[in-house]
Amino acid sequence: MTKQPISLLNQAITTHALDGVLITDPKHVYYLTGFASDPHERFLGLVLVQGEEPTLIVPSLDEEAASAASTVKNIVTHQDTDNPYHILKKYLPRTMNSFGIEKDHLSLSRYEELVQYAEAKKFVDIGPLLRELRVRKAPHEVERMKVAANMIEEVLRRGLTHVKEGVTEVELVAEMEYQMKKLGASGPSFDTMVLSGPNTALPHGVPGTRKLAYGDLLMFDMGVYVNGYASDITRTFAFGELSPEQTKVYNTVLEANLKGIESVKPGVTLASVDLAARQVTIDAGYGDRFLHRLGHGLGIDVHEYPSVHGANQELLTEGMAFTIEPGIYIPGLGGVRIEDEVIVTADGVELLTSFPKELQILG
Amino acid sequence: MTKQPISLLNQAITTHALDGVLITDPKHVYYLTGFASDPHERFLGLVLVQGEEPTLIVPSLDEEAASAASTVKNIVTHQDTDNPYHILKKYLPRTMNSFGIEKDHLSLSRYEELVQYAEAKKFVDIGPLLRELRVRKAPHEVERMKVAANMIEEVLRRGLTHVKEGVTEVELVAEMEYQMKKLGASGPSFDTMVLSGPNTALPHGVPGTRKLAYGDLLMFDMGVYVNGYASDITRTFAFGELSPEQTKVYNTVLEANLKGIESVKPGVTLASVDLAARQVTIDAGYGDRFLHRLGHGLGIDVHEYPSVHGANQELLTEGMAFTIEPGIYIPGLGGVRIEDEVIVTADGVELLTSFPKELQILG
Repeated sequence: MTKQPISLLNQAITTHALDGVLITDPKHVYYLTGFASDPHERFLGLVLVQGEEPTLIVPSLDEEAASAASTVKNIVTHQDTDNPYHILKKYLPRTMNSFGIEKDHLSLSRYEELVQYAEAKKFVDIGPLLRELRVRKAPHEVERMKVAANMIEEVLRRGLTHVKEGVTEVELVAEMEYQMKKLGASGPSFDTMVLSGPNTALPHGVPGTRKLAYGDLLMFDMGVYVNGYASDITRTFAFGELSPEQTKVYNTVLEANLKGIESVKPGVTLASVDLAARQVTIDAGYGDRFLHRLGHGLGIDVHEYPSVHGANQELLTEGMAFTIEPGIYIPGLGGVRIEDEVIVTADGVELLTSFPKELQILG
Repeated sequence: MTKQPISLLNQAITTHALDGVLITDPKHVYYLTGFASDPHERFLGLVLVQGEEPTLIVPSLDEEAASAASTVKNIVTHQDTDNPYHILKKYLPRTMNSFGIEKDHLSLSRYEELVQYAEAKKFVDIGPLLRELRVRKAPHEVERMKVAANMIEEVLRRGLTHVKEGVTEVELVAEMEYQMKKLGASGPSFDTMVLSGPNTALPHGVPGTRKLAYGDLLMFDMGVYVNGYASDITRTFAFGELSPEQTKVYNTVLEANLKGIESVKPGVTLASVDLAARQVTIDAGYGDRFLHRLGHGLGIDVHEYPSVHGANQELLTEGMAFTIEPGIYIPGLGGVRIEDEVIVTADGVELLTSFPKELQILG
C-alpha cells in the first residue's frame, strides 16, 4: 500500500530530528489531511509532534467541513475571540530544540505571535521538505489530476463550437469559462488565455477584442481546478488555411512536443527533457524563437516544483507530474504552443491529456 | 487639490520618525503608484526614504508596464538571476533607526533575507498606517468604484433574463460570470453566489444544482474587479408569488437597508449604523435571524477596513466606503439580503449602487 503523505512527513520529522512541526499553508493542510479550506485571515494549523497523534486547529465555522473531510481526526476549533496560539501551545512540547515551520507561508506578524507561545531553540523551514513530498504524486492525486485534465478537454471541445469569423478573444474566454462552470469546475486554474492572429506570438499575451479572421492561428491555454487539483493544456488551431511557414512552425512544435514526451522516464535529468524538445526547434531553425522553459510541475498548484528547463540537473522520479509545452513565436506571423501533462511512471511516461494534436483547420 | 496617497504616506513617515519604508504588498504598490501587478514569487518593492525620491523595484519583465502606469518614475529592475535585496540596499540609508515594513505581507523567509541587507535598529509595522490612508477614498478611487458598481448592475440586469423555472444555481452563476467577462471585468471580485429556495437561508451557502421552482426566493451576491477596484451587491427576488411571511421578511430587510443608509454621516459610530438597520429587524421580531455584521469596507480589496458591526465605536469619516447588507435567514422559509455600497460624504452619504430594491416578482 502507498504511504499516505502524512506518514511520509512523520518519517521526515524523525529523520530531521524535529520535535514538532506546524503546517499553516492551506494547500499543505489539504495535501496532508484532505481538508481543503480558505481560512482567509483566520488561523489554520496542522500540528505534528514526535510520538503524538496529529492535531488540526481550525476556525470554529469550519468544524463540520473539517470533520467530514480530514483524515486527521483530532480536530480542535477556535472562535474569533480566542487566541489560536494559546490553543496551539497546549499541543506542543513545553520546550523544543527544533520546531519546523513554513517560512515562505508564515507572515512576520504571525511568526512574532508564534514565538511567544512556541518555545524552541531553532525554527527550521520545512518548506523544502513538503515540496519534496508533493513532487511524488500518490495514486489518488493522479486520479484527481486526470479528472481535471478530462474536464478541461471537454471544455475545449465545447468551446470550439463557438469559433467563427469575427468572434473576439475575450468572447471565447467567456465561452470557455462558462463551460468550466457548467461542468462543475471550482474555477479556472489560471487566467484563461485565448489569442488569435499575430497575438499568438506573445507567450504571455492578454486576451483582447481582436476579431478572428481567416488565416489566423488560434491558441487556447487554459485549465480548471476540480477537487483541489489543477489542469493545464494548450492547443493551437488554424482558422482557415495557413501559410506554408505557419504550417512548418506548427509541425515543428508538434514534433518537439512528441520528442519531449518520448524522452520522459525515471533517472534522466529534467534538462535532458527540455533539450530533447528544444533540439527539434533548433534543427528546424527556430531555436531562438522558443522563448521559455519546456514546462513546469503541477498538482495542487498549477505551477509547482519541478521546473523543466535546460539547466535543471535534477533527476526525474516516478510520480513526478509536469507539463511539456514547447512553443515557437514569430512576430507578425504568430505563434504555436502545444502543451500536454505527463506523469513519470516506473518505466516511462503516462499522458494525462489526450486532446488530438494533429493540425486542425477550423472555419 | 486632493493629496496623492504617496504624499500622505511621506507625511506619515515624517510624523512617525521612520528613516524609510519598504512597501511589498502589490495592492499597496498599486494604491501608492497606480501600477497594478501580480509578481507571483518575484520581488516587488516600493522604497520611500526621508528626503529622497521614491524608487520602485520591479521584475525586469514588468518594466514596460510599470513605466506606463506608475506615478513613481524612478523604476529599477531586477532579473531572475539578481538578488533583489542587494539592489534594494543601494536605495536605503547605510544605517537606520526605524524602518517601516509590512509585517502582515512579508513572509518570514523574505524578512530573514531583508535583514541581511537593511540595517535598522527597529523594524516597525506600517500595515496600520496604510490601512488608515486607504480608508479615505480619493475622488479617482470613487470614480473607479462607480465603474465597478455600474458594471455589476449591468451584469445582474443581463443575467436576470436567464432566470426561468428549472434553471440551476450554478447555471445562473455561469451566466453572470459570462456577462462579467463580456463587459470587460478583470473577473469576479469573489465567488459569485446564486442561491434559491431554502438555500437562501444560508448566509454563506455555495451554489449547487438545485433547480429553481415557483415560490422560491432567489438571491444574487456578486461583484467584479475593474481597474483594480471591487464592487459587491446583493439583490433578492421572488420567483412567482411569495408567502405572506416571505414578503414580510423581504420588506423588513428592505427597510433595514434604507434605515442603515439613512444613518450614514460623518461623526457617528460604525456601531450606530449597524444598530440603525438592526433595530428594524428586532422590531419586526427577526433580530435573532440577522446573523452577521451589517457590512464591510471595500475598495482595492472586496473586504477591507472598516468593519460595520455593533461593537465598532470608531467614527465615520468623509471618504469611507462600505457595504450596507442586512439579511434575515429562516431555515426552510429562505433568506433575504439586500446589499448596497455607500461612500461617506462631507454631510451624509452617497450610494454607489442603484439597482431597484422594491420586491420584484420574476417568472
